[in-house]
Amino acid sequence: MRSFMSEKYATLEAYTPGEQPQDMQYVKLNTNESPFPPSDKVLEAVAEEAEKLNLYCDPECKALREELAPIFGVNPENILPVNGSDEALYLAFAAFADANTPVAYPNISYGFYPVYAAVNHLPSHVIPLKGDFSLDYREYCGLNEMIVIANPNAPTGMTIPVSEIEEILKSNPNNVVLIDEAYVAFGGESCVPLIEKYDNLLVCQTFSKSHSMAGARLGVAIASEGIIRDMNTLKYSINPYNINRMTQRAGIAAAQTSRYYLDNCKVIVENREYTTLKLKEMGFEVLPSKANFIFAKSSAISGQEYYAKLKSEGVLVRHFKKPEIEDFCRITIGTREQMDVLLEKTAKILSEKGC
Amino acid sequence: MRSFMSEKYATLEAYTPGEQPQDMQYVKLNTNESPFPPSDKVLEAVAEEAEKLNLYCDPECKALREELAPIFGVNPENILPVNGSDEALYLAFAAFADANTPVAYPNISYGFYPVYAAVNHLPSHVIPLKGDFSLDYREYCGLNEMIVIANPNAPTGMTIPVSEIEEILKSNPNNVVLIDEAYVAFGGESCVPLIEKYDNLLVCQTFSKSHSMAGARLGVAIASEGIIRDMNTLKYSINPYNINRMTQRAGIAAAQTSRYYLDNCKVIVENREYTTLKLKEMGFEVLPSKANFIFAKSSAISGQEYYAKLKSEGVLVRHFKKPEIEDFCRITIGTREQMDVLLEKTAKILSEKGC
Repeated sequence: MRSFMSEKYATLEAYTPGEQPQDMQYVKLNTNESPFPPSDKVLEAVAEEAEKLNLYCDPECKALREELAPIFGVNPENILPVNGSDEALYLAFAAFADANTPVAYPNISYGFYPVYAAVNHLPSHVIPLKGDFSLDYREYCGLNEMIVIANPNAPTGMTIPVSEIEEILKSNPNNVVLIDEAYVAFGGESCVPLIEKYDNLLVCQTFSKSHSMAGARLGVAIASEGIIRDMNTLKYSINPYNINRMTQRAGIAAAQTSRYYLDNCKVIVENREYTTLKLKEMGFEVLPSKANFIFAKSSAISGQEYYAKLKSEGVLVRHFKKPEIEDFCRITIGTREQMDVLLEKTAKILSEKGC
Repeated sequence: MRSFMSEKYATLEAYTPGEQPQDMQYVKLNTNESPFPPSDKVLEAVAEEAEKLNLYCDPECKALREELAPIFGVNPENILPVNGSDEALYLAFAAFADANTPVAYPNISYGFYPVYAAVNHLPSHVIPLKGDFSLDYREYCGLNEMIVIANPNAPTGMTIPVSEIEEILKSNPNNVVLIDEAYVAFGGESCVPLIEKYDNLLVCQTFSKSHSMAGARLGVAIASEGIIRDMNTLKYSINPYNINRMTQRAGIAAAQTSRYYLDNCKVIVENREYTTLKLKEMGFEVLPSKANFIFAKSSAISGQEYYAKLKSEGVLVRHFKKPEIEDFCRITIGTREQMDVLLEKTAKILSEKGC
């Protein structure tokens, strides 16, 4: 099989999404999806919009931005909807870093950051987290580099206070500071209110988790008009019609039924605290999470074995082979019923190991 | 408003999509959309799929590729579904050209090609069409460059025979030859059967026009396994979940109702021939089109004026300010009723000019 790929991508290693095995029905706790369906209003909106599929979607996503602006407390010009927040990350890495402007991010975080750096040929400044997986904001102050921090972080679920992010923003006034808030809806504190004050702040959020829309692909970048304009220049040079009609309408309908989603997020938070408690009772160490997942390890079983045994019991979680975190598994928080299956299977696995 | 954009994009000029004015209801003949709604099966499939929006879409688009493979007479491994064929173009320009491998394309063609070259920092080898807007395939032989040709071409609608494309493929064996078949369903001849024979051939098609799915965003790249693998490496480094659930299902349902779409394409071809004849009777020159649009000019009225007067009469067509084609307007072929409005307004405009 011949390759025609440019030399410039000769060493590119792509991102590996969470597995989607089709061999059986799993309790799927491996890709941080919401266990709850979209709201009825979303279903109605999608069905209605499908009738107009022959017409292009609005490349400006005007109606969607106008619906979202008051929710975020910004102007429509501060919002760029994207085809999943991954697209916002790609655009931002491409736009705001280069050979002379490295991109700084923690060693343990979203696994796509190094890939976005590589595909854009950017120097990465990888800053190790502390031994307890906490982040020392002072290591990001005065870097004069583009900075990318997930808050809450993935796959740890741990947060840093917005006040510390403000220090990072202040001390890197000439660089974009990207705060990836994919998981902010489950107890985290958002930086969006800082956008008015810091024109170098770029916040990315997603409808995938909190709004039950992982399969619809909708994220948003929220930032100063200058940052959004620059990202739009790239978007209109890559894929102007990036968000299809159905997803734009689904996003509007989801925003209009926020009560439903807020209630769902509350349930996830309750189930997270419940699962954390139960796992701790079984001897697990569970990092303090504000996300819709937890990161857990047990001295009784390796991360790899726990993952594999859960899978053979019909429960999918995610294991990362990276040395610093290979003892852990990342467990998405689902319904109470799903978490009870996880806990029951975990007890069984541990007891079979003689614990 | 401050910019943080990297110097590398300082001179980047984005693509300008066709206008989507909201001030009134237009007879919209400016963006080559189908006037026909999607099939009922597509509507049902979308509504059903929306219930699962909380779950990620399949990044491999397996079911969709398996549905499409027999239709194209290739294997699923020869297909990469994309978020509109623009995405395939972007991935291909990025993957298969670089500073040492320029990309060659005609001076009059899809306006996005120069933008894709610019955003990827590629040297462009722009080859002028002949005075009659025909393409001499010999100018693309033995170039040792990546080659991009739209067939039918846009905005002219003109075609070159597949036998000539084969000569281009043979004489550039170490470079990707991209044939953009966005408009092939309206009487053109597809290169897809050549894929088995030439591993350097990449064909892009879209569901936007022939399958009434411009608003759903679905295109396909069809090529050798090597080319598709390379494009996948980039896709998984940029946006793995690029096609949402609803669009994947809509694509499957559309493929299963191809009779409906073939009939629609036939109507478009009939309406194209009808409109061409009528415009010629009014003194227009109309290029020989195999697409769902025609490119027409009249010595009685400039392209700019014809566009503007049609717009004030409630009919939107597309005018390009490029000197070589500024005398023309591109007119999308819609329903017979829409074309009769265009013809009636055209007659009125010409008579007001004293023709």
